[in-house]
Amino acid sequence: MTALPPLSPTARTTVTRGRHRAVADRARLHAFLAEALVAHVGVVVDDRPVVLPAAYAVDLDGPDDGGTLYLHGSVAAGWLRAAARAHVCVTVTELDGLVAARSGFHHSMNYRSVVVFGEAEAITDPDEKAAALDAIVEHVVPGRTTEVRPMRDDEVRGTLVLRLPLEEASTKVRSGGPVDDDADLGATDVWAGVLPAAVAFGTPAPDHLVPEDLHPPRSVVGYRRG
Amino acid sequence: MTALPPLSPTARTTVTRGRHRAVADRARLHAFLAEALVAHVGVVVDDRPVVLPAAYAVDLDGPDDGGTLYLHGSVAAGWLRAAARAHVCVTVTELDGLVAARSGFHHSMNYRSVVVFGEAEAITDPDEKAAALDAIVEHVVPGRTTEVRPMRDDEVRGTLVLRLPLEEASTKVRSGGPVDDDADLGATDVWAGVLPAAVAFGTPAPDHLVPEDLHPPRSVVGYRRG
Repeated sequence: MTALPPLSPTARTTVTRGRHRAVADRARLHAFLAEALVAHVGVVVDDRPVVLPAAYAVDLDGPDDGGTLYLHGSVAAGWLRAAARAHVCVTVTELDGLVAARSGFHHSMNYRSVVVFGEAEAITDPDEKAAALDAIVEHVVPGRTTEVRPMRDDEVRGTLVLRLPLEEASTKVRSGGPVDDDADLGATDVWAGVLPAAVAFGTPAPDHLVPEDLHPPRSVVGYRRG
Repeated sequence: MTALPPLSPTARTTVTRGRHRAVADRARLHAFLAEALVAHVGVVVDDRPVVLPAAYAVDLDGPDDGGTLYLHGSVAAGWLRAAARAHVCVTVTELDGLVAARSGFHHSMNYRSVVVFGEAEAITDPDEKAAALDAIVEHVVPGRTTEVRPMRDDEVRGTLVLRLPLEEASTKVRSGGPVDDDADLGATDVWAGVLPAAVAFGTPAPDHLVPEDLHPPRSVVGYRRG
């Protein structure tokens, strides 16, 4: 991987509110996208916005200089077909905490968020599609593709896979404690602070057909993100 | 609160993929929106989709029959101004687990998701605005508005609050174990199952100005959702 270009600042990705929260840093963008699990994909259908949750993967060695984001779904999913060769907005947000200030007005949340704008394109090459689908499985459960059979041709054919260059993107981070009005800081009887939040993973629950002596594999034991 | 109308089925909210995952149940819609914390708000700006994360609240006693969803932000936030009197799509998703199937193709995630379509409207009445802002604080940290000073007039004036009727909405739920191809069920050496996921909250961390003997209040001690 060669040196990456800077994030492309445009009218849409130039953060106008909370400037100190904008992080125009490609390494941080990639690290955050590697850690998070769920994207919200926005597309315009009949002049109106549609936003749906989706799994995704990022490939830094993909065809795009700044990295490639992959999305997938059934070829029968109308919103995904609408997203192919259309402008999309892919937003990924992780909640890091609830910020309790000394006034209701200054309550906030700590979070990291990435917003990617661009024109998505359906991948037609079967090998590239299969690799992208494997990348999405690997993104969610690293190592898992080595534990299961390879993707079949009919499975690849029945799936729509979209490619989106990570070119026009912005990262926004809110971290730290509350930012209160000076006038409220004298209220020493009002507690203020942060309640940390993070996605936690439980004990792997086997499917009912899994033999009792078959233990969970490396990919799910001790699973963690980031 | 009187009996609620059924969810309005439209071309957009009639789920075409995974029909068994659509839950046209208003009580479940409300329960899920009450539990989740982060919404992704989609709006069309210059013919292109923009999706941003936002806090929200739901008021079942609001002006709309099926409930009212509130969003807020600075009056200087362009995307929020664009959302006022425009069609928006508000999507709320909670991840419940990672589903490891016996093939990469059938890997999935367990989740609950609500998609609300409608025309958002800026609230102009100061009292209604203040109540909506309090509702958003209460949604995130129940009981918190009783622990802090009331919202000031200038704070209410400087905030844009949008109202969206919970009229056209759909709920989608994916739960349970993997759904594998019959041909893959014989692979008794391949573990399959679910890795449960949920947002977890840590120990409240006080702001540096909080006196040592001031303990965290009821609103944050033992904090949990749902």
